[in-house]
Amino acid sequence: MLDCGRALPSVTVAYRTYGTLNAAKSNAIMICHALTGDQYVAEQNPETGRPGWWERVVGPGAPIDTDKYFVICSNVLGGCMGSTGPRSPRGEAPGELWGRDFPVITIHDMVRVQKRLVEHFGIRKLFAVIGGSMGGMQALSWAVQYPEMLYAAVPIAAAYYHSAQNIAFHEIGRQAIFADPAFCNGHYWAQGVRPERGLAVARMTAHITYVSEEALTRKFGRKLQNAEGLSALGEQFAVESYLQYQGSSFVTRFDANSYLSITRAMDLFDLAGDHEGGLSQAFRGASARFLLVSFSSDWLFPTAQSRTIARALNHAAANVSFVEVQSDKGHDAFLLDEPDFHATLRGFLVGCAEHAGLA
Amino acid sequence: MLDCGRALPSVTVAYRTYGTLNAAKSNAIMICHALTGDQYVAEQNPETGRPGWWERVVGPGAPIDTDKYFVICSNVLGGCMGSTGPRSPRGEAPGELWGRDFPVITIHDMVRVQKRLVEHFGIRKLFAVIGGSMGGMQALSWAVQYPEMLYAAVPIAAAYYHSAQNIAFHEIGRQAIFADPAFCNGHYWAQGVRPERGLAVARMTAHITYVSEEALTRKFGRKLQNAEGLSALGEQFAVESYLQYQGSSFVTRFDANSYLSITRAMDLFDLAGDHEGGLSQAFRGASARFLLVSFSSDWLFPTAQSRTIARALNHAAANVSFVEVQSDKGHDAFLLDEPDFHATLRGFLVGCAEHAGLA
Repeated sequence: MLDCGRALPSVTVAYRTYGTLNAAKSNAIMICHALTGDQYVAEQNPETGRPGWWERVVGPGAPIDTDKYFVICSNVLGGCMGSTGPRSPRGEAPGELWGRDFPVITIHDMVRVQKRLVEHFGIRKLFAVIGGSMGGMQALSWAVQYPEMLYAAVPIAAAYYHSAQNIAFHEIGRQAIFADPAFCNGHYWAQGVRPERGLAVARMTAHITYVSEEALTRKFGRKLQNAEGLSALGEQFAVESYLQYQGSSFVTRFDANSYLSITRAMDLFDLAGDHEGGLSQAFRGASARFLLVSFSSDWLFPTAQSRTIARALNHAAANVSFVEVQSDKGHDAFLLDEPDFHATLRGFLVGCAEHAGLA
Repeated sequence: MLDCGRALPSVTVAYRTYGTLNAAKSNAIMICHALTGDQYVAEQNPETGRPGWWERVVGPGAPIDTDKYFVICSNVLGGCMGSTGPRSPRGEAPGELWGRDFPVITIHDMVRVQKRLVEHFGIRKLFAVIGGSMGGMQALSWAVQYPEMLYAAVPIAAAYYHSAQNIAFHEIGRQAIFADPAFCNGHYWAQGVRPERGLAVARMTAHITYVSEEALTRKFGRKLQNAEGLSALGEQFAVESYLQYQGSSFVTRFDANSYLSITRAMDLFDLAGDHEGGLSQAFRGASARFLLVSFSSDWLFPTAQSRTIARALNHAAANVSFVEVQSDKGHDAFLLDEPDFHATLRGFLVGCAEHAGLA
């Protein structure tokens, strides 16, 4: 049963694992991906041919060390990389897909599906749940829904609610998709088309929020893409060309209906609003050790969000570390080469493993 | 001759005036409008039926007191409210319009046209040039191009260059317009259509940058538009409905090709880049009295921009006042009810008038 009151007859979960589950089944780490991420954390993505999205962080000897831990990552409910989502068959009739009739899903729904996957492995308690951005929302949802199933939780560049500005940016993207006539009210597969231009604008808009003003200035400033000076309207500044590339490379790998479903799930996330008594009430019973990481130049889910989460966890008498990493890379810093962040994560996990008796 | 090297055979300027020019022609104030503004500063706009966009600031007894000053405001070159722009006839052939062939224009070009209008009135020296946002860019361009023609200059919520992030947000809007099939590569008039959906997305994107995160939170927070809870995708949060209204009300009054031309003019603005030796070199010879106003929560043209301008003007030995108004309303604060800003502007003009012998 989903939060919206509807039920899905069956749910498929596409996942990847790395490393080996130990005999005690005590070394499992669930990694939760972000809005446009997928299960290919630490290996080449077979659809795009690109490296896994977190190869810097997950692998043998990496901060999330697959020589020690059994890492699980699944495509979220509502996604388009194999898990049940709007592109899944609706019923018995061949070729009939959910499209826009796919039920409204929430971050909590995504986590309920992950819990079933964890149980499928016979794992009673995860060593850790770790995720950035929307993955951080999922880590928080895990801590609220299944506090007894976590030894540690690491929400990174996370938020405990989506602000009016966050919702506004998502709404721009959705309106751009709706405005594309190839969207066909969500039935574009049946028409053999895809709302690529609308989805590209959505991605471009979101991308601006993932990078800091400083990073854009450092990388592009006012550089021209070509040196022709004042040319006609059209591609001209390097930052425009970069954004257009972000848009066009995205539409080949992502599905517009999934984008609508997942952005809506993020908008609906509001841990404080869900609980009478607010955030600290939501975390009552949270027994995990928490590491919260924020990035100083993240203006999408700014440090203030993580600080409020830390305060609420403290109020609930939880065990919390909170690190604001100094970085000018913005929200996306959790995906990038940030040695301070990696060292922080490694140190936290080593400490937790010692404490948990995972030698 | 335009900055791009092309020339327009003739230029029409649509303008409005308020108050009376004195015999010495020494009491004229040029008001420069913002990206989507127009010449209807202090009277009902005949196209929209809405009040003038700066009735709080301009009128009898207002900070810009039309009992004392002769106020001129013209629609910018490239605009769509009567001045020459992409919707103007291209040549002799009836019905042949410029469309996307309209030459690339700059903020400096806009100001050159305004100067001709001022000369048309026989005015040798403006008492002041005043403008917010893109209007502030024009005020700065006036100070750089025609320093001897100004007694005072008031750039409000202004910028001396467009940053990579500023350009990126404009590019989202342009891509949304290009993605609308009704754009017809700019020839939509001939087809009897208008790229309303793309232009609406452009406006929505820009609008987010005009308001602060605090203002969105205060006005909308996570309020739902209706109380149905988790409904299907579509309008749901109040902030979405608000944005959609901003988009749809805009497309009836603005032309997409003008939007493309004017956003590009803003992107091209870079006073420091234009001058060897940077900004203070640009202001060499600036003899006007300057009042710079920024708003604390403006993240589009933040206070740091105005501070840099103030520093460069000081370096050029100009006479500068700089006020950062504490406001949570964001960039658009210059259009809104901000008593501190209005008092600052009034005080500055009163002082200048005394000094100039305008009793």
